Amino acid sequence: MQSMFKKRDNIKEVEEGKYLAPKFDKNGLIPVITADFQAGNILMHGYMNDEALKKTIESKEAHYWSRSRNKVWHKGEISGFVQKVIEIKIDDDQDAIWLSVDIGKGASCHVGYRSCFYRSIPLGKIENDQELEMKFKEEKKIFDPEKVYKDQSNPTKL
Amino acid sequence: MQSMFKKRDNIKEVEEGKYLAPKFDKNGLIPVITADFQAGNILMHGYMNDEALKKTIESKEAHYWSRSRNKVWHKGEISGFVQKVIEIKIDDDQDAIWLSVDIGKGASCHVGYRSCFYRSIPLGKIENDQELEMKFKEEKKIFDPEKVYKDQSNPTKL
Repeated sequence: MQSMFKKRDNIKEVEEGKYLAPKFDKNGLIPVITADFQAGNILMHGYMNDEALKKTIESKEAHYWSRSRNKVWHKGEISGFVQKVIEIKIDDDQDAIWLSVDIGKGASCHVGYRSCFYRSIPLGKIENDQELEMKFKEEKKIFDPEKVYKDQSNPTKL
Repeated sequence: MQSMFKKRDNIKEVEEGKYLAPKFDKNGLIPVITADFQAGNILMHGYMNDEALKKTIESKEAHYWSRSRNKVWHKGEISGFVQKVIEIKIDDDQDAIWLSVDIGKGASCHVGYRSCFYRSIPLGKIENDQELEMKFKEEKKIFDPEKVYKDQSNPTKL
């Protein structure tokens, strides 16, 4: 499976070379940032293994590694909210991926919002280590997760 | 240090509550996506521990955990390219952070480019698992890393 990736045997090549040589961590995963190709805002943060990366490149639809279900996951297979891949970029040391996707008017968050990043953390001095109260930035859900996911288990872990 | 964070004892609260309750992994880290607050494009992918997150919230300048140097790292302390934090968001299960920052006309990549994501992966069928040749999307470096970092060790690991 990994023969399509160049061996990482030279830092200069990894950083300034033109061949894809991703670094998978000791669990075989690489972090993935998924952003809306038009608005630019970030939709989700996930992970891929080598198989998910290859499937994403070939099918032009986002595939991830689900850490809660322990398998490759074709995003949208249950909800219908498939992510069409417009561009894939990789960072300097090739240990993180940026996916630009088209989700139309859909959602990417299992809670029902368009983006998983729907809460904003207050900035400034923290008094007496008090709990930090966030602001909701997306107030309207795009779908009702109870109807869409029915008896699927929730991927959020404590 | 962690008393400012709410305890993660309820999935509904983590997902839909208003209190910050970040999930640090078994190394005490949470992944961070850093994006340009105006253009929206992604600049880098890093990690924070609880101390770096607290320092970022309070100082409104990005602090990360450097996995290569094993310490909290005030971004820009060597290069001068400090990241002014405009907004911090957290995702549904509170295990990833999105930092919107202002870096002016500066750079965020130790290789010298504005964004660490300067290469694009080709999409489509992969023939015979051949190596994948990427396209450079940023051709001009903003600074010369050899002049700026001098005898600092390169954070890229094979």
